[in-house]
Order: sequence, then C-alpha cells, then structure tokens
Amino acid sequence: MTQIAFQDYYPDHMAHCYGCGRLNEYGHQIKSYWDGEESVCHFQPEPFHISIPGYVYGGLLAALVDCHGTGTAAAAGYKADSRAMDTEPPLRYLTASLHIDYLKPTPLGFTLEVRGKVKEVKGRKVVIEEWVSANGIISVRAELIAVQVPDKLIHELLLD
Amino acid sequence: MTQIAFQDYYPDHMAHCYGCGRLNEYGHQIKSYWDGEESVCHFQPEPFHISIPGYVYGGLLAALVDCHGTGTAAAAGYKADSRAMDTEPPLRYLTASLHIDYLKPTPLGFTLEVRGKVKEVKGRKVVIEEWVSANGIISVRAELIAVQVPDKLIHELLLD
Repeated sequence: MTQIAFQDYYPDHMAHCYGCGRLNEYGHQIKSYWDGEESVCHFQPEPFHISIPGYVYGGLLAALVDCHGTGTAAAAGYKADSRAMDTEPPLRYLTASLHIDYLKPTPLGFTLEVRGKVKEVKGRKVVIEEWVSANGIISVRAELIAVQVPDKLIHELLLD
Repeated sequence: MTQIAFQDYYPDHMAHCYGCGRLNEYGHQIKSYWDGEESVCHFQPEPFHISIPGYVYGGLLAALVDCHGTGTAAAAGYKADSRAMDTEPPLRYLTASLHIDYLKPTPLGFTLEVRGKVKEVKGRKVVIEEWVSANGIISVRAELIAVQVPDKLIHELLLD
C-alpha cells in the first residue's frame, strides 16, 4: 500500500510501544491502514507464538487488536476532525477497555488479517469493533474502547 | 513457594504456550499458584515491554491475565472435583472470552502481581476474576471465561 500507516504518524514519544512502535526494535511494529470504511493490519506470527502447537496464542491476538484498535481510534479521531494525523492539536489515545471473544483456535502459518470498524466517536471516547481472520476464517471478535488523553498528560507520565 | 505451579502439571502437548508453556523457550513461562482462595502469579516485564517509555504495554498484560486465567480455571476444575491436577480424566481449558479494563498505566520496573479469583464453576465453564498490580497499586481488572474442551479435541487439533 502507498498510504502511510497510522502508527507512522505517531510522534517519537508515542512510537516505542512493543505492539506498534516503529522505534521498538524488539516489538511487533504493526502497521494499520484505512481500507474504505474499515481499517486493516496484516501480521505474520512467529513459529513460537503458539498456544498449542499449530495455533496462535491468545496474548498475541489481544496485543494485535489492542494496538490496531488504538491506531484506528486515533485515525478516526483525526478523520472526525477532517484533518491529517500529523496536524495540531495532537490526538493521543489509550485503551480503556478491551473485550475479546475467541471464537475458535487461530491456525498458525497464515498472515493474520486484523480489521477494525469505528462504532462510535463521542467526545474523548472512540469505540472500535474488530475481528481477526486467518486463511479467510474469522477466529476472533473484539471491541475496544479508546480514550483520548491530553498530550500534556502523556508528557507528565513520561517524566514520572 | 514449594507448591508445584498449575502450568507444571500441564502435559507436554499443552506446555508449548508462549504465555505459560514450560517448553516454550522463547515465551513468558508464567507460573501460577494458589494463595488461599486466590491464585497468584508474579512476572517481571522486560525493559522493551512498553506502551510509552516507563509503562507496560497492554498486550503483555492481556497475555498474563489470559494464561493466569486459564491456569486458574484448570486448577479450579480439579479442585471442584477434589483431585490433583495430574489425575485422570484430564481437564483442559481454553479461553472463550476475555474482558480487560485498563484502569491506569502500569509502571515498568516492578514485579507485576496477577491475582485471580474463581467466580463460577458451572459445567464446562469457569469464570475467573483477575487483577494486576505493580508496586501495590491495581492498574488492570479483568474477567475471563474459560471453557473445558475434551482432551480428544485437543489431540484432533494437534493432528490438523
């Protein structure tokens, strides 16, 4: 894709996340994009990311929907303001809650597709519906509530 | 502690999980124990397990409550049957759903304590309430629904 990923708009101080930070050399560095009204992210699990042999472990799936969800929330916030993700004032989001239904085991050996859909943008809250599929079969459904936090608060946390 | 961890009772074919498998050399290898009516697990995040610098990323916290929750569910299942975890017939549990509330950022640099409490054991379903604390402060609350699956089904999945 020729679009810039949501996560590549994050400023450096927000780009160290193990799940999605481009500056975390040990992490997953996921990339999320708009695909029409939905957001999409592709991820190839490592052979050791397993629950039982041959199936992806739930913690990785949770990490993917967490980071893809906050990325989608940020993109949705800027979209609701009709402006690009690198414009001021900054919109920063953290996960307030995450609900995951593991519908069936997720097979290893496929590129996972994580999709998101904005259910609601209301004040500081964004609700994202998500699902994960492997080989075209949906194995996980999730809902994430992200909350916008002032960039000032992020900087205060960083100075703690 | 001198107790054997819940996860150390898992048979080899269930001991490869990235979150809790003793045979996954790349994984977290968490260990869960009874502490009275509650279950407890301690885990030291790595310096790179961050969301923003200085704080633990949500995906790791999800992985911890997922694996500690299924471990607690298994232990609760055997306890409800008044027998040890290495006795027959085997009880195997998978996560059906996980709900996580991130109450506040979880600071890095402390050993995390994950605690679980059995809310319900009903038929094949076990509901576990969990919370995570760092430096004595609870930052995450979660609820996990685990479902018992026949060992035969696990073996069928392994042969897929």
